[in-house]
Amino acid sequence: MPSSLLQEFLKVFEQLRDEIVNDELLAGQPEASKQWVKEMMDYNVPLGKLNRGMAVLDVVQSLAEAKGAAPSAEDEFRANALGWCIEFLQAYFLVADDIMDSSITRRGQPCWYRRPEVGMVAINDGIILEACIFRILKKHFGALPCYVHLLELFHEVTFKTAHGQLLDTTTAPIGTVDLSRYTLDTYLRIVTYKTAFYTFYLPVACGLRLAGITDPAAYKLAEDICLQMGRYFQIQDDYLDCFGDPEVIGKIGTDIQDNKCSWLVVQALTRASEEQKAAIEESYGKDEEAAVQRVKEVYRQLDLEGLFKKYEQDSHDQLVKTIEGQDLLPQGVFTMLLKKIYKRQK
Amino acid sequence: MPSSLLQEFLKVFEQLRDEIVNDELLAGQPEASKQWVKEMMDYNVPLGKLNRGMAVLDVVQSLAEAKGAAPSAEDEFRANALGWCIEFLQAYFLVADDIMDSSITRRGQPCWYRRPEVGMVAINDGIILEACIFRILKKHFGALPCYVHLLELFHEVTFKTAHGQLLDTTTAPIGTVDLSRYTLDTYLRIVTYKTAFYTFYLPVACGLRLAGITDPAAYKLAEDICLQMGRYFQIQDDYLDCFGDPEVIGKIGTDIQDNKCSWLVVQALTRASEEQKAAIEESYGKDEEAAVQRVKEVYRQLDLEGLFKKYEQDSHDQLVKTIEGQDLLPQGVFTMLLKKIYKRQK
Repeated sequence: MPSSLLQEFLKVFEQLRDEIVNDELLAGQPEASKQWVKEMMDYNVPLGKLNRGMAVLDVVQSLAEAKGAAPSAEDEFRANALGWCIEFLQAYFLVADDIMDSSITRRGQPCWYRRPEVGMVAINDGIILEACIFRILKKHFGALPCYVHLLELFHEVTFKTAHGQLLDTTTAPIGTVDLSRYTLDTYLRIVTYKTAFYTFYLPVACGLRLAGITDPAAYKLAEDICLQMGRYFQIQDDYLDCFGDPEVIGKIGTDIQDNKCSWLVVQALTRASEEQKAAIEESYGKDEEAAVQRVKEVYRQLDLEGLFKKYEQDSHDQLVKTIEGQDLLPQGVFTMLLKKIYKRQK
Repeated sequence: MPSSLLQEFLKVFEQLRDEIVNDELLAGQPEASKQWVKEMMDYNVPLGKLNRGMAVLDVVQSLAEAKGAAPSAEDEFRANALGWCIEFLQAYFLVADDIMDSSITRRGQPCWYRRPEVGMVAINDGIILEACIFRILKKHFGALPCYVHLLELFHEVTFKTAHGQLLDTTTAPIGTVDLSRYTLDTYLRIVTYKTAFYTFYLPVACGLRLAGITDPAAYKLAEDICLQMGRYFQIQDDYLDCFGDPEVIGKIGTDIQDNKCSWLVVQALTRASEEQKAAIEESYGKDEEAAVQRVKEVYRQLDLEGLFKKYEQDSHDQLVKTIEGQDLLPQGVFTMLLKKIYKRQK
């Protein structure tokens, strides 16, 4: 991705952050609290891959191109501002998730709540991060016809994502191992709600709203395609956690040790012999190298790599077919997203 | 308060709760997750005093009476539904606050996060509680002209309340005692943002929006009066924590042990002799009966009870003067609220 797009995106963050720090609703606030909010945003919002946030501008550009036009500077700013709203939402979820999962690091630095001066105050910081979304929307979109739709979009995606998190938690309550709950149906529902809505549907829907599209059928179509893409994306993630190159993905996977409801274990359980099932049940969720290797051995015996490659190809072909088989929305909106994730190595 | 009003209010809760549990956005969700959400709402939302939630209908009734009318059944339902949105918001804050403060009990039962099956998952439950507000608003207010104003009202009050919580935290970081930060200015700012906006301004503004009032001057006036009332309410709370009858208020105050930035300690510090100041600094924030008694002895020497009674009278007189000195809004809107809190014993 050209670094000038990234530079532009980061410049918009600085503007939005400074507007929030000096928000008129908090007129007269002490310097210490301004400083806290600024540092908290700098630490939690802009240091990820920013794929979700930057996708809004991609969508807006694809929609403009399909009309033989290019987005105005104002449209570009708005697309990026909406992109940051998505990144703020993600930051809100991640700050909370890290506490719930007792995580240690995030994006190569200690999780926010692990900083000694923060601790559980991170929960309130999460509330602030989410509230920032609505300050940004009001300031920069409050006068547009799409304003109320954008508000509802963020509300609905938040509601669904929290439901996905709840499903994940109730499927694998902390400290319990019950692999009988790890069915493909359950897995797909968790992934759809916890990840796909906010990662794929939200940026696309933001772009469509900005472009003034109001046809409910267009949103339904975008949802179908984006959710399918989101499931594919998460299944890749689960695959790479076990079979990816740690040098390339930048971390060593721990899904097996962490008892995660991963696509791999779900597939293994439906295919395993009694003996293999017993090996998984014995070893899954244990933080011991030998146990991890036993699970991976079963994965190899069942050729889950081959199964994944086949799934990847089928899913890609199916997506292309759906994208090409409709004429409600320009194909570029989706093909551009799909290109970025198909056969990714990290 | 007539118990039929309470019965009616609780009936509305049950309807809203059941609508959320069966929300179409989560179509096909497993029973276990429905059950979790239902129990979580029952545990955290309707078991408080419900003053804030029930105040919306009071406001709507006062506004109707001033026109010689009575609210329709539909208006009453809407007032109560908005009241529940406020109670959901409060539940969201309290679930989070209890974790941040390591609290043990809330409303006579263990704090939600202290339940063994919940723990830090309570953070996600908080996210769900907040998201419910916007589901209720969309379903029951989405077609009304006040819809977007209601959304913004809840966003803005949430943002301000989180700021109040942040101020409170940065003023008295956990594990530190620095009484020099406990000034009256800081105290009033914390109280205004952390409590007054959502406790007094929010129910009144909800009632005004429902009644179709759009004049910004009316909201500014309501804000001024409500924030003054909110500060008075919190100062009473601080007074009762030390000087109230535990039998009547239903709990034994622990502000002194907990190193709280209370109106009493703020006032004591501005009036104390060097010797008295030393006694406070030595004993405040210690969980020992003798230390608590030493602080209370200084409070008695400085006649903080007398100071409070004078403040209470002055504040009441000032509020009445402001309420009677305006003709933008019916006086009943505010006098009815004031009557409920003036000289309260619990």
